[in-house]
Amino acid sequence: MAKGKVLLVLYEGGDHAKQVPELFGCLENELGIRKFVEDNGYELVSTSDKDPEPNSKVDKELADAEIVITTPFFPAYITKTRIEKAPKLKIAITAGVGSDHIDLNAANEKKITVAEVTGSNVVSVAEHVLMTILVLIRNFVPAHEQAISGKWDIAGAAKQEFDLEDKVISTVGAGRIGFRVLERLIAFNPKKLYYYDYQELPASAIKQLNDVSKILNGRDDIIERVESLEEMVSKSDVVTINCPLHEKSKGLFNKALISKMKKGSYLVNTARGAICIEDDVAEAVNSGHLAGYGGDVWFPQPAPGTHPWRSMKNPYGGGNAMTPHVSGTSLDAQARYAAGVKDILKEYFDGTHNYRPQDIIVIDGDYSTKAYGQRTKK
Amino acid sequence: MAKGKVLLVLYEGGDHAKQVPELFGCLENELGIRKFVEDNGYELVSTSDKDPEPNSKVDKELADAEIVITTPFFPAYITKTRIEKAPKLKIAITAGVGSDHIDLNAANEKKITVAEVTGSNVVSVAEHVLMTILVLIRNFVPAHEQAISGKWDIAGAAKQEFDLEDKVISTVGAGRIGFRVLERLIAFNPKKLYYYDYQELPASAIKQLNDVSKILNGRDDIIERVESLEEMVSKSDVVTINCPLHEKSKGLFNKALISKMKKGSYLVNTARGAICIEDDVAEAVNSGHLAGYGGDVWFPQPAPGTHPWRSMKNPYGGGNAMTPHVSGTSLDAQARYAAGVKDILKEYFDGTHNYRPQDIIVIDGDYSTKAYGQRTKK
Repeated sequence: MAKGKVLLVLYEGGDHAKQVPELFGCLENELGIRKFVEDNGYELVSTSDKDPEPNSKVDKELADAEIVITTPFFPAYITKTRIEKAPKLKIAITAGVGSDHIDLNAANEKKITVAEVTGSNVVSVAEHVLMTILVLIRNFVPAHEQAISGKWDIAGAAKQEFDLEDKVISTVGAGRIGFRVLERLIAFNPKKLYYYDYQELPASAIKQLNDVSKILNGRDDIIERVESLEEMVSKSDVVTINCPLHEKSKGLFNKALISKMKKGSYLVNTARGAICIEDDVAEAVNSGHLAGYGGDVWFPQPAPGTHPWRSMKNPYGGGNAMTPHVSGTSLDAQARYAAGVKDILKEYFDGTHNYRPQDIIVIDGDYSTKAYGQRTKK
Repeated sequence: MAKGKVLLVLYEGGDHAKQVPELFGCLENELGIRKFVEDNGYELVSTSDKDPEPNSKVDKELADAEIVITTPFFPAYITKTRIEKAPKLKIAITAGVGSDHIDLNAANEKKITVAEVTGSNVVSVAEHVLMTILVLIRNFVPAHEQAISGKWDIAGAAKQEFDLEDKVISTVGAGRIGFRVLERLIAFNPKKLYYYDYQELPASAIKQLNDVSKILNGRDDIIERVESLEEMVSKSDVVTINCPLHEKSKGLFNKALISKMKKGSYLVNTARGAICIEDDVAEAVNSGHLAGYGGDVWFPQPAPGTHPWRSMKNPYGGGNAMTPHVSGTSLDAQARYAAGVKDILKEYFDGTHNYRPQDIIVIDGDYSTKAYGQRTKK
């Protein structure tokens, strides 16, 4: 008789899982935790059957699960109704970063702990942001399409190809990911880096960015905080979104805000799809108001085949740099978040609950972070 | 009666030229120099009809041209035979950087000056290198193909997706472009940066890179010169080629050298196509010995539709990040090299010949730079 059930929801690996054993994050490879879970007297049930509620295997298995482990890449949405039907659930662990697929208020009501592996893939995501900015501003996709289809039309690619140098680049959110994006942008010698965040970067972080800029660009005033989001986007050539999804950021980039963005600018979102209104983004790209949009986050996930971000293009045929939600699931990141999940489980199984503070999103019925935009003290 | 003829060879812009007047580098927009040339009493003849020798318009017009202006993106190959048939030719100007499409020894024999606009697009190319490295190592192309074709196969993209962080990255050549690549790589926190070059970086440049690494990565030993190319490529996850094409670099990356590269590593070449043996590269990618190859340079240019770099793919279906030769012809770069060509022409028309020293490749029958690998003092 097992002490309890661990429900693990992961994307399918299929043949990929056999070819690449380092694909810890897929269903077949189970984060490498089966033996560890069983050695601790628990049962492990793995599935990729998560939709639709309430008819999936997740619904069936969650009914008597004590622990649920999910990922942002292929999220089982842990809704209020699912939580209400899971009386034994004690902890929901996100294998990765970002726990917005869990109804945090509902988790608090039931005193369910929500934990994630903070930092496990912040570098991976920051790299994806830099890649996406370069892919968009340098017009990579149309140029690559020429290469593989046998064409040679330099003007057709160059007509919307720019340098990143001397452009104004802004981040919404300067937390663990946003700050790493800023670090990686400085050597590209941007005209200015702006950030919009609920809290100011520490003086030491500002100094770090400016010191690097002084060495590489001869200017030590590279970074500036902006109070008004509308003002920031209106003067930016590239805006990148690096904030969590919460009540205030949901739908933030709607028609009204996008209309304030500079004509011909670029928007990059590797945070969460629901921060942008999908039709408003697609319309802005298709009309050419935005020269391009890229990123790897969608709502819901998997994105339907008809999602407008799959097909949108600017009037010159470029401007789409979308990928599925892969930025945080590089093989390097998978190794880190698999290890991090094991660490969290160990604290749970041992009954010590001595979690890393930065991994805890909600615990004992309250938010332990301000990053999700609210504190609902009971 | 014109004082002489200026022959300008540029890629066609077509409708793109009408839509985007900033496309200075195309045939229709003529680098914006027509009025300037005519005001100086010269005739300007523009064409994109450059192949094949000896039956193109270039051959016909070169016969009595005094000045020829070409680009690396769509090069008119100024061969020994073409030079011999151009008795009035005094100066060949490259609108951009890299004059290997001109037979420099033949130019020296006839005391033809060869000049280029040094620095005009080094930033553009360095950015393209960073983009290509990220596109390859993060497996962007297969992921993007999923996004636009309606798929959601995270494992299929992630199975060959890595972080750039903690990887070993090397450059062959640490000149104006290679150094800028190194600058831009540091914030990605590589395990090590190596360079291979005929001359050592100045101590101040080494210090600059290490100082930035100290601030961002806490390590001040990021950069190291390597004496043996074979040794360098054998320990690198990514090798990027940033040296000119000359007698010693032609065909440098052949089967023998590529076989020394780490299995599963990446090769990025934005220097010149002929530095790599095309079939050897394609075979290495197709077999999976190289996880990927990317860049924008080919030989000849335009590349034929059957060039193997158009269709090569690694066994997982990715690993191709080719584009046509666009890295140095962003709209920002076009503005710079158009201005630089005008500056060179002005010195020529005025008879002052007070060129920027760094722009001169050969003059008065001799090489003025060691970057092309040889000095043939007469």
